[in-house]
Amino acid sequence: MAKRPRLLIRSYICLSFLAYSLVASHAQTDPLPSWNDIAPKKAILAFVEKVTKEGTSDFVPIEQRIATFDNDGTLWVEQPMYVQMQFILDRVKELAPKHPDWKTTQPFKAVLDGDMKALVASGEKGLLQLMAATHSGVTVDQFQKIVTDWLATARNRRFNRPHNECIYQPMVELLSYLRANGFKTYIVSGGGVEFMRPWTEKAYGVPPEQVVGSSIKTKFELINGKPELMRLPEINFVDDKEGKPVAINQEIGRRPIAAFGNSDGDQQMLEWTAAGFGARLILLVHHTDADREYAYDRQSTVGKLDKALDEANARGWIVVDMKKDWNRIFSFGQ
Amino acid sequence: MAKRPRLLIRSYICLSFLAYSLVASHAQTDPLPSWNDIAPKKAILAFVEKVTKEGTSDFVPIEQRIATFDNDGTLWVEQPMYVQMQFILDRVKELAPKHPDWKTTQPFKAVLDGDMKALVASGEKGLLQLMAATHSGVTVDQFQKIVTDWLATARNRRFNRPHNECIYQPMVELLSYLRANGFKTYIVSGGGVEFMRPWTEKAYGVPPEQVVGSSIKTKFELINGKPELMRLPEINFVDDKEGKPVAINQEIGRRPIAAFGNSDGDQQMLEWTAAGFGARLILLVHHTDADREYAYDRQSTVGKLDKALDEANARGWIVVDMKKDWNRIFSFGQ
Repeated sequence: MAKRPRLLIRSYICLSFLAYSLVASHAQTDPLPSWNDIAPKKAILAFVEKVTKEGTSDFVPIEQRIATFDNDGTLWVEQPMYVQMQFILDRVKELAPKHPDWKTTQPFKAVLDGDMKALVASGEKGLLQLMAATHSGVTVDQFQKIVTDWLATARNRRFNRPHNECIYQPMVELLSYLRANGFKTYIVSGGGVEFMRPWTEKAYGVPPEQVVGSSIKTKFELINGKPELMRLPEINFVDDKEGKPVAINQEIGRRPIAAFGNSDGDQQMLEWTAAGFGARLILLVHHTDADREYAYDRQSTVGKLDKALDEANARGWIVVDMKKDWNRIFSFGQ
Repeated sequence: MAKRPRLLIRSYICLSFLAYSLVASHAQTDPLPSWNDIAPKKAILAFVEKVTKEGTSDFVPIEQRIATFDNDGTLWVEQPMYVQMQFILDRVKELAPKHPDWKTTQPFKAVLDGDMKALVASGEKGLLQLMAATHSGVTVDQFQKIVTDWLATARNRRFNRPHNECIYQPMVELLSYLRANGFKTYIVSGGGVEFMRPWTEKAYGVPPEQVVGSSIKTKFELINGKPELMRLPEINFVDDKEGKPVAINQEIGRRPIAAFGNSDGDQQMLEWTAAGFGARLILLVHHTDADREYAYDRQSTVGKLDKALDEANARGWIVVDMKKDWNRIFSFGQ
């Protein structure tokens, strides 16, 4: 019987050591491995640590930990053109046989002729026209299927990957890290809300009810006695620039304590977030890496970053230098 | 040493018995004590049991367990007039000195004269006019404070209690029961979204981001360099009737599997919910208890229940007979 207690003691020491190792290894696990250990990463970690530490003046109750992320250029690649723009071009071509007038009417003509210059010239108004024409006339359920089917075969031209794989690994890690610390993560994008919802949960862990975006009007109708929501060719809301804080207030009803963007379209969301009381995390992704992704800012027609960059610099918001701050951009190894 | 093991064994038996008792008492705890043990309650329990039972054909994954509740007349008392109407009346009187023209202009005149007949005659249009006039010209933060301050002193005339205490205890139990079974509970109300958000979390456990309602337009402005959302005197969206499924799709982006209402304003939400694939729980609260609350349906100007009642009967939706099905209506004992 003398050996038994010793064996037990040894097992106990062994188990304790194992437990300690597990705890220590957990504590050492880097939640943001694709971020280099320099200023932006340190600021993110410091922010999360202070707002989650009970009993301090910076502590934020869990239900108020709202973080909003732009999508195009902040979470996924927006070059050489917005993904939804590519969807629109493909869909115009698909629907063209039913609309012979499109051959002579802008901005449809530009799409069918492959005339990118004329297309860009049609501006936001043209984009919204194209969006209305290609996104309506179907039910919300049908549209969800159209988006899902398109996404399964469409590819980003440069990376030759499905668009929902061309997402920034450092930002995916950031989303997970914030959620692990009690944050509710939202997408607040100029993109169409029903264009995003079919795939954001799988790509980012953001469920449909936490996706806010631009929208067209829908109408409740009984079709053959079955209730349907028909998508109408009329813009309901443009969730860009001044629209972003409006939509955040309308759909979330709380002011975020953290906001992430990459362009002037995000400036007001960042301002609205920053103006709240208490600790804030405000971050812009600056595309500086032409080798691994793209380099663009003040002169770009897609994801223009000009005034927001000046404001970020003036106010000390975090500006991520993609080339310097991210050791990996995509999960597929770039 | 002989007594020690026996003592240990006794303690063990004692603890086991205690643990068993706790488990048994937990299992026997009625999640809906204010509901009588008859058909509606049985149907609710059966529905929740089947959709939460993994491996069966009725099982619904947790992220799809969305339940939407109307507010006025479904969660809180809407008689003798909608609570928000009472707020409007009080606020018109408060603001009247700044608007001398209201003395001669309908529907404001009706409010100032206490002419309820003229007020009712102004209909939904009048209501929306009053809403715009009394709900705008302030920031969203200011409005939140106005609502909170008003609610602290306003009383339901019959029960002489704060409005946010005149809430149906059986429905509060139902909200909790659904959440305990993984449901996300939403309010989808014709009432103003910013009129509800300041108090729904405390009253119902429904956080601001899960409140959907009617709204007026807001505008992002820099006021003395500070970003503000100003409330404009213009209706943005009426979340009633056909508007309810539209708003559910816009803001939640998933079809509910359970929906609860009490009037014709909820009919389309119930239809939209019922038309989805799989098990559904569709319920109407029928106000049948003039002694403890109110009795009204087809002829009522407030919370009219006519067509939706016919449809409920035809389709076998649950119709709660307040008098028969609820053994308690309010937590304060009625």
